[in-house]
Amino acid sequence: MTQNIYDDPGFFAGYSQLPRSLQGLGGAPEWPSLRRLLPDLKGKRVLDLGCGFGWFCRWAREAGAARVWGLDVSERMLARARTDPADPAVTYRRADLETVDLDTMDRGDGAAPGPFDLIYSSLAFHYLENLDRLIGQVATVLDPAGWLVFSVEHPICTAPGNPGWITDAEGRKVWPVERYLDEGPRSTNWLAEGVIKQHRSIATYLNLLLDRGLMLEHLEEWSPSEAQIAAEPSWADEQQRPFFLLIACRR
Amino acid sequence: MTQNIYDDPGFFAGYSQLPRSLQGLGGAPEWPSLRRLLPDLKGKRVLDLGCGFGWFCRWAREAGAARVWGLDVSERMLARARTDPADPAVTYRRADLETVDLDTMDRGDGAAPGPFDLIYSSLAFHYLENLDRLIGQVATVLDPAGWLVFSVEHPICTAPGNPGWITDAEGRKVWPVERYLDEGPRSTNWLAEGVIKQHRSIATYLNLLLDRGLMLEHLEEWSPSEAQIAAEPSWADEQQRPFFLLIACRR
Repeated sequence: MTQNIYDDPGFFAGYSQLPRSLQGLGGAPEWPSLRRLLPDLKGKRVLDLGCGFGWFCRWAREAGAARVWGLDVSERMLARARTDPADPAVTYRRADLETVDLDTMDRGDGAAPGPFDLIYSSLAFHYLENLDRLIGQVATVLDPAGWLVFSVEHPICTAPGNPGWITDAEGRKVWPVERYLDEGPRSTNWLAEGVIKQHRSIATYLNLLLDRGLMLEHLEEWSPSEAQIAAEPSWADEQQRPFFLLIACRR
Repeated sequence: MTQNIYDDPGFFAGYSQLPRSLQGLGGAPEWPSLRRLLPDLKGKRVLDLGCGFGWFCRWAREAGAARVWGLDVSERMLARARTDPADPAVTYRRADLETVDLDTMDRGDGAAPGPFDLIYSSLAFHYLENLDRLIGQVATVLDPAGWLVFSVEHPICTAPGNPGWITDAEGRKVWPVERYLDEGPRSTNWLAEGVIKQHRSIATYLNLLLDRGLMLEHLEEWSPSEAQIAAEPSWADEQQRPFFLLIACRR
């Protein structure tokens, strides 16, 4: 099973204080870019892989989705998601994305598992060891006209064994890339010690999708906009290299 | 017009001594990977954008292509290409890829310009300021079942204003990424001073293709294989970050 760091009390306490936890989607600086990649959700069936506190599930309903399912491995996050006023069209389920069977999962409404119009995932896939298996499932349960839209930490960021800005001989802040082609686990200290993420190259992410018959529609290497840096000057360095990778594809 | 560095006498002299110039495709370490992305060429019409000494044009004929056109901006390279025994099925033409009109170009055989089954380009696109224009032309002159397969220097390599390995505080050799999102010209000293290449992000390369209606089939971030490093130990660092970006797409 994947390391379930979100149920680590210290990690959870720290994560709960991040802007994206306190303010929801509006606190996630990449959200405006990710949102632009989404199809129209009116009347659609949506599945969120790694739904966390449920911010996206609720937003999808506000955007007109007919039915939303949110899966997460973290009991703490699901418990928080469920404190919101109940919406009979939103179902949260505990599931390990390494082993979940999307085709036969209990959708909670008595209906047979059916195709989804949008499968969405924000910053969850980089925790998975066996992403290929999950993408295979996604390709199976997507409607023939369905979309997969997701974000991960950018491979330039996950590559180094010791991530962090360094200064070159001429005083420039640079991001030290190494081990980019050496895919596999990276241990970092972020909110807790020993958080394990899986580094994959951009090529691997894309070929996983293409090999499962999905078609790439758009890719974005996100860094803050000028307006975001004006509002948050400490982010200026983040323009030197992309921080998130956003991908939209279709069946 | 694009900087025509290949007609600079000093650059040309240096370039002519590289393994890929002396030995042809076998001297280009990324060639085996690029070749795997190519469709079957038997009986096909092939266009090589930036054909240089014509190594690929000749190879395409050996691989069964019926008709091959090679375009290059460098008179010196074309002159060398033409020293090979003439093949009536191979036509070399001088053309600036910034301004060439692929749809009306003189193909040299009296036939109307027609669709191509494969458009190929090795390490040429990163010199172009207006790649979007050329990709638009490519999308127009590709056969409905045609392929575009090309290589460029990897954006991780072209991003830094001052490219070159540096050593971090713990003695690790790292590649300093900066200005990745700041697309545009980069001046480097490689075989000659002030060689201008255009830095583009991976996202920009891909979205240029997708926005012109091309479908991504495969992407590779090339670095040397273990076997290549065993044969050429000085390449070991090249595994820390990809050196070439190889892309195959279809109409």
